Amino acid sequence: MRSDRSAFPLNLPTYLVKSAVRAALKEDLGAAGDITTDAIIPADASSEAAIVSRQDGVVAGLDLAEAAFRALDPTISFRRLVEDGGKVASGGTIAEVSGKTRALLTGERTALNFLNRLSGIATMTAAFVKAVESTQARIACTRKTTPGFRAFEKYAVRAGGGINHRFGLYDAVLIKDNHIAAAGGLGEALKRLCAGRRHMVKIEVEVDSLGQLEEALKFPIDAALLDNMTVETLKRAVKLVAGRVLTEASGSVTLENVREIAATGVDLISVGALTHSPRILDSSLEWKR
Amino acid sequence: MRSDRSAFPLNLPTYLVKSAVRAALKEDLGAAGDITTDAIIPADASSEAAIVSRQDGVVAGLDLAEAAFRALDPTISFRRLVEDGGKVASGGTIAEVSGKTRALLTGERTALNFLNRLSGIATMTAAFVKAVESTQARIACTRKTTPGFRAFEKYAVRAGGGINHRFGLYDAVLIKDNHIAAAGGLGEALKRLCAGRRHMVKIEVEVDSLGQLEEALKFPIDAALLDNMTVETLKRAVKLVAGRVLTEASGSVTLENVREIAATGVDLISVGALTHSPRILDSSLEWKR
Amino acid sequence: MRSDRSAFPLNLPTYLVKSAVRAALKEDLGAAGDITTDAIIPADASSEAAIVSRQDGVVAGLDLAEAAFRALDPTISFRRLVEDGGKVASGGTIAEVSGKTRALLTGERTALNFLNRLSGIATMTAAFVKAVESTQARIACTRKTTPGFRAFEKYAVRAGGGINHRFGLYDAVLIKDNHIAAAGGLGEALKRLCAGRRHMVKIEVEVDSLGQLEEALKFPIDAALLDNMTVETLKRAVKLVAGRVLTEASGSVTLENVREIAATGVDLISVGALTHSPRILDSSLEWKR
Amino acid sequence: MRSDRSAFPLNLPTYLVKSAVRAALKEDLGAAGDITTDAIIPADASSEAAIVSRQDGVVAGLDLAEAAFRALDPTISFRRLVEDGGKVASGGTIAEVSGKTRALLTGERTALNFLNRLSGIATMTAAFVKAVESTQARIACTRKTTPGFRAFEKYAVRAGGGINHRFGLYDAVLIKDNHIAAAGGLGEALKRLCAGRRHMVKIEVEVDSLGQLEEALKFPIDAALLDNMTVETLKRAVKLVAGRVLTEASGSVTLENVREIAATGVDLISVGALTHSPRILDSSLEWKR
Amino acid sequence: MRSDRSAFPLNLPTYLVKSAVRAALKEDLGAAGDITTDAIIPADASSEAAIVSRQDGVVAGLDLAEAAFRALDPTISFRRLVEDGGKVASGGTIAEVSGKTRALLTGERTALNFLNRLSGIATMTAAFVKAVESTQARIACTRKTTPGFRAFEKYAVRAGGGINHRFGLYDAVLIKDNHIAAAGGLGEALKRLCAGRRHMVKIEVEVDSLGQLEEALKFPIDAALLDNMTVETLKRAVKLVAGRVLTEASGSVTLENVREIAATGVDLISVGALTHSPRILDSSLEWKR
Amino acid sequence: MRSDRSAFPLNLPTYLVKSAVRAALKEDLGAAGDITTDAIIPADASSEAAIVSRQDGVVAGLDLAEAAFRALDPTISFRRLVEDGGKVASGGTIAEVSGKTRALLTGERTALNFLNRLSGIATMTAAFVKAVESTQARIACTRKTTPGFRAFEKYAVRAGGGINHRFGLYDAVLIKDNHIAAAGGLGEALKRLCAGRRHMVKIEVEVDSLGQLEEALKFPIDAALLDNMTVETLKRAVKLVAGRVLTEASGSVTLENVREIAATGVDLISVGALTHSPRILDSSLEWKR
Repeated sequence: MRSDRSAFPLNLPTYLVKSAVRAALKEDLGAAGDITTDAIIPADASSEAAIVSRQDGVVAGLDLAEAAFRALDPTISFRRLVEDGGKVASGGTIAEVSGKTRALLTGERTALNFLNRLSGIATMTAAFVKAVESTQARIACTRKTTPGFRAFEKYAVRAGGGINHRFGLYDAVLIKDNHIAAAGGLGEALKRLCAGRRHMVKIEVEVDSLGQLEEALKFPIDAALLDNMTVETLKRAVKLVAGRVLTEASGSVTLENVREIAATGVDLISVGALTHSPRILDSSLEWKR
Repeated sequence: MRSDRSAFPLNLPTYLVKSAVRAALKEDLGAAGDITTDAIIPADASSEAAIVSRQDGVVAGLDLAEAAFRALDPTISFRRLVEDGGKVASGGTIAEVSGKTRALLTGERTALNFLNRLSGIATMTAAFVKAVESTQARIACTRKTTPGFRAFEKYAVRAGGGINHRFGLYDAVLIKDNHIAAAGGLGEALKRLCAGRRHMVKIEVEVDSLGQLEEALKFPIDAALLDNMTVETLKRAVKLVAGRVLTEASGSVTLENVREIAATGVDLISVGALTHSPRILDSSLEWKR
Repeated sequence: MRSDRSAFPLNLPTYLVKSAVRAALKEDLGAAGDITTDAIIPADASSEAAIVSRQDGVVAGLDLAEAAFRALDPTISFRRLVEDGGKVASGGTIAEVSGKTRALLTGERTALNFLNRLSGIATMTAAFVKAVESTQARIACTRKTTPGFRAFEKYAVRAGGGINHRFGLYDAVLIKDNHIAAAGGLGEALKRLCAGRRHMVKIEVEVDSLGQLEEALKFPIDAALLDNMTVETLKRAVKLVAGRVLTEASGSVTLENVREIAATGVDLISVGALTHSPRILDSSLEWKR
Repeated sequence: MRSDRSAFPLNLPTYLVKSAVRAALKEDLGAAGDITTDAIIPADASSEAAIVSRQDGVVAGLDLAEAAFRALDPTISFRRLVEDGGKVASGGTIAEVSGKTRALLTGERTALNFLNRLSGIATMTAAFVKAVESTQARIACTRKTTPGFRAFEKYAVRAGGGINHRFGLYDAVLIKDNHIAAAGGLGEALKRLCAGRRHMVKIEVEVDSLGQLEEALKFPIDAALLDNMTVETLKRAVKLVAGRVLTEASGSVTLENVREIAATGVDLISVGALTHSPRILDSSLEWKR
Repeated sequence: MRSDRSAFPLNLPTYLVKSAVRAALKEDLGAAGDITTDAIIPADASSEAAIVSRQDGVVAGLDLAEAAFRALDPTISFRRLVEDGGKVASGGTIAEVSGKTRALLTGERTALNFLNRLSGIATMTAAFVKAVESTQARIACTRKTTPGFRAFEKYAVRAGGGINHRFGLYDAVLIKDNHIAAAGGLGEALKRLCAGRRHMVKIEVEVDSLGQLEEALKFPIDAALLDNMTVETLKRAVKLVAGRVLTEASGSVTLENVREIAATGVDLISVGALTHSPRILDSSLEWKR
Repeated sequence: MRSDRSAFPLNLPTYLVKSAVRAALKEDLGAAGDITTDAIIPADASSEAAIVSRQDGVVAGLDLAEAAFRALDPTISFRRLVEDGGKVASGGTIAEVSGKTRALLTGERTALNFLNRLSGIATMTAAFVKAVESTQARIACTRKTTPGFRAFEKYAVRAGGGINHRFGLYDAVLIKDNHIAAAGGLGEALKRLCAGRRHMVKIEVEVDSLGQLEEALKFPIDAALLDNMTVETLKRAVKLVAGRVLTEASGSVTLENVREIAATGVDLISVGALTHSPRILDSSLEWKR
């Protein structure tokens, strides 16, 4: 399900996985722990189960799901039948887990909360990527993420074949409408910015008209965010830019209109919904024995 | 938009608000900070803006949005035109903010990420609550939440007029299908559990048939979770229970079928989608001057 | 020493053990570390020792004691001669430890501080449990715990055969005298509360007279806390309640009067002293070689 | 109640107070908060109450109690009628508090858990200090403290007029019996230690016989811990030392025998029970209006 | 002392300042606090002092110095006679501080440790910036920073008129010699990289010969790091690049040779010593009264 | 390179190593991770490399360097050719590392940042220690350290054969000029201090004249810090003290004048530059295959 244009390998820093899983288990266990499982299941019982998908989709988050079980039982066996970025069909098994019964029951919801959410994002991203197949356009995410969960949501976008826009306010410059309003105009904003620009930081400017685009192109920018433009205007913008900077379409992008937008020739299409309103990919832990 | 049956006041522990906002700003600012705003806007500039909704909905998360701006400028003014749990119409102003321009621009996305997500959950919850209006059924959430964000998602459900189910594995007992499988039967699970039950902890049992329900009712349980039953079976289950314990319907609940489910006489209807697949309520920061 | 009525297994979430041990070692080692041991003992020396009790009692906290040594030497051997909840006699060995000499000497006080404190609580709890043997009454703890150490103190109460009351303000409702005063009466407090009650949360009300008890029983509560009543009044209260809700006696409970209180027929007797004023069970690390 | 020999002012680093109070409130509030108070008390209600002692004693921990309320309502008024280290009589008011009703009710137990525990330690310490009045002996604490709570327990000892021994393994050298056993003798241990001694760190040696004491005095040590010696032996030890180093008696010290021990002429008497087995000073929050 | 080419304003995220100051005070105060000051100075005494420089230099770190005092006394007055990025002469006053005597004495070393270190970096940076004055070259820092202190060291470089290179491995791509060795050649490394490149991330490649430079220029890179080249080779490299990408000289740059390097026409000169081996700017707290 | 007078073994608490390495990797990896390495190197590739010094010096920090690689690949092999405190010559190999290629490349800078900085301090310390060889004087560090990094810098001083002065304000008393000014005189300060002195805490007083020294010697102090005195005055001070307390010279100590200072007979010479202005020992990761 990974875009064939992207060879960017998937990797999630280990320390992020560990600390997120620890926090999630703490959130679910509190000070009393799993009072249901502890009361019913002997400490030494073992079991087997499988994570089975109830929908077609693209998987993401297996490191997190595995780490959730492993934090509760370091000897757990977690066998993946598909890797992050791979497809699963409805009814298909994503992974087989065996180990301490208590660890399986206590870790189930935490593991699935990570896996289903991230797989949902990967699945939605993959649908957009597929919709623009064979065009030059790539699908990107935004900073409209769940507070505290961004690194994982951005990772899921990569798993679905999309690419990541800025990770935060710190790693690239994006001058938006409110910046322009506050600075008293696009030219003024860009003039101030370029005076002290860092050489390893890219600059993108949000424009909402061809006039603004022309003004922006007078400065040494790297990309232009074409905000909420019609397909017609996008085409003219791409023509105007003529490859001098990257072009990114954004605003009200849906699975229905994304291909038409891609056909305008823009380099990137950013889709806020990938991270602000995804549906989960529904999978569950099926008990074997 | 708050359920008229619920007088439960909204409250979010301050320490949760502060630590979540601090973490979210850290996630967005990193070590370099807001390199766009810092380059364009003088430190002493002031501005005014308004948070305007682009959709009809129910608001939740204002404490978090305000705290995001305040963490960047302690002297910010944040005037609410609606409170959490209140309705906003498309185009309506949720709050007016004024203070340091840098704080407005740098805090914008973090504030909206909290507000839009939680308002989305409140709005969806309110729709379900409205759909079962004038029945005895109440709408509840589940543990299918974003890791690390559960306290806020549960709060948003309350803001929408719903009630919270367990906050975690620690505050109530819920024996589910996998527990029963692992324990070797419902009776065995309940026997073990009741031997050591804590007097201030409630016990709910998930059953998927009337037979299982009858077996469960032999034990001193507080509630029965009727999982994935047809409307017909739900009716018979409610009749069988006859008020001895609370009844909760769950599984594949939608806005379309929720009223029919409520009409079966169940006390509660739990809806995983409220927290696992909500859409945001889209609001944005409109610049005034 | 575990109550025969309680089959509730002992379990302490691993993440709690790890983080408490890490914090305790940090508190004891600071930035300079164990300057005595590091100066005297070569890094590769090995030793054997035993944790020996100087008193009769019930053991609790072995996971924490073991984790303290293991954090300093992952290859340590820690052999338990008794498990948490089990009895030890004066002069009896609780556990045998062998491994790096430095780890034994540096971890000694931290391990014993956990073990002796929790065993002290378990021992005191067991004495109360034994005192009410063959009555229906169970011994419960309160929220009068050491800040930051509650989860472990509550665990020690379970190890001694007692049961846990609320873990915090979040997992059950308990309306106390000051709530009633602030709300302007018991009836008003209960009315407000029941309007928005969560279905999986129990409600207990503190009453100090039979009149107040009668008023409380008009509401759908789960338990009544009979505060500082005489044995005579307790008997009448139990009779008045007639099994409709659980009854809990509290206030000035001692080993001397607890059996008399139990004989009144109350379901629970809560004892603040279990966690607010326990004596340690004195054990020490005896050097073998 | 402060020892007249001690002018050491009481001070507790602010950052310790803040972080301990934050952790304690988090422990008590969890993710759901105070579900009793939030359901019963309107957000804007105000009240007055007093912290009243039920026993005679010495107070410690007011900064923590005040901070607990202030964390919930920054505008709270907290008027102290006695300061840390001062005496309170049974029935006497320690402090008057007024502010948001919710803050008073929600913070009550956390504030009292700090105050009652620390006042209990201060009270017990003061009793020992009084018992040795007009002797040269000073009362000291040990490292037998509650994990994570040591800084506060040590502070309470100071409030009671005692002095603090080591805060941890890092700030002074104390060679104990197990070090001697592991090093193969007292002489060997001291030889290794003195080779690399830091000039600003004191060295104390635990000895259990006069012979061992004589051996230790051959080295440049600062203090001798006379462990579990009879009163007769202590006298001979003090004579043997003849003021060359400080002498500290320890082991089985009680209020009954402490004066006799002091009369032997030792400089210090360390009492583990001050921090390992204190009883609380019982105070409670009395509602005014 | 700020480069006239740079209008990039100085800003340090508040949360970084607060958490670093808190950690530094915790490191210095431990659990016992400032035992010297607390014993000597009454809690209510006030004083005035001045931070005076003993050398000529450029100041950086005033927010941190002020925050160190303010954390100990929120009412402290801290008047700056120079701002970050400004010059101070030997004997000149940097700031005047007045407030609680205890806060001044306890915070002195922490405040100066921040200020002197960061001013040392700013001063060294300014010397390099001055040395290349009126050339096109800009002075940049590297990732050779003190673990845990990078954000502040990078800030100090900005204060001295330099620009920041990458903040970490996460915000730009830099292919170094070891990457090339591990990937089996520069071409292979670049091919893999460009396949999945993120549009808002810049790519720089380290080359150590003109041949390697030519190979790198075949790919869409943004900058070339010319490593350890002679001045002669640098000139030829700049000519070869002909403005297509940015050129950065690095390796063995000193105040003696930096101007000669700048004269080759490179855009940037990165100097590891700015952050790996700076000398402090010596300032001290002079007591007024 | 360790001073032959010092047998104080090197030890760094494990928990400090782990948490510092985790924080350093987090600082370098952020949320996106090592975007260069992840894009170029397959997850399963393995490599070998060596840490080679480019200068003569004394090594310190190997535990931290190893832990940095191990955190990224737990199966890494890290073979030390020299231990902390040992000498390395220019071109000499410090350690050989083999394991996952990604771990080597991603961990390289973090490992070297620890190792080079601490080895730089050890090397500088060793130079001072060698300069005073065969005198009685020992070389000590100060509290002029990098905020948050003190424990490691103090450790490096030990590795170079120096001894550690105070670790913070909490573990010894040092009355400095500003304390004396604030207290209204040396005598007053000492009088207040001695009233409440803790028996296990040493007291040092900073004096800047022989008169002040004489005054200080009237009190039971342990050491005198002779601040910024000429060699002639130091000699007279040592004679005046006559072995009653330790003498420490400080102020403007350099490699050029340290032997002359030592020859005055002082016991200690403290050198701020060891930790406030060291140069790194330059080592790098040389790729093998």
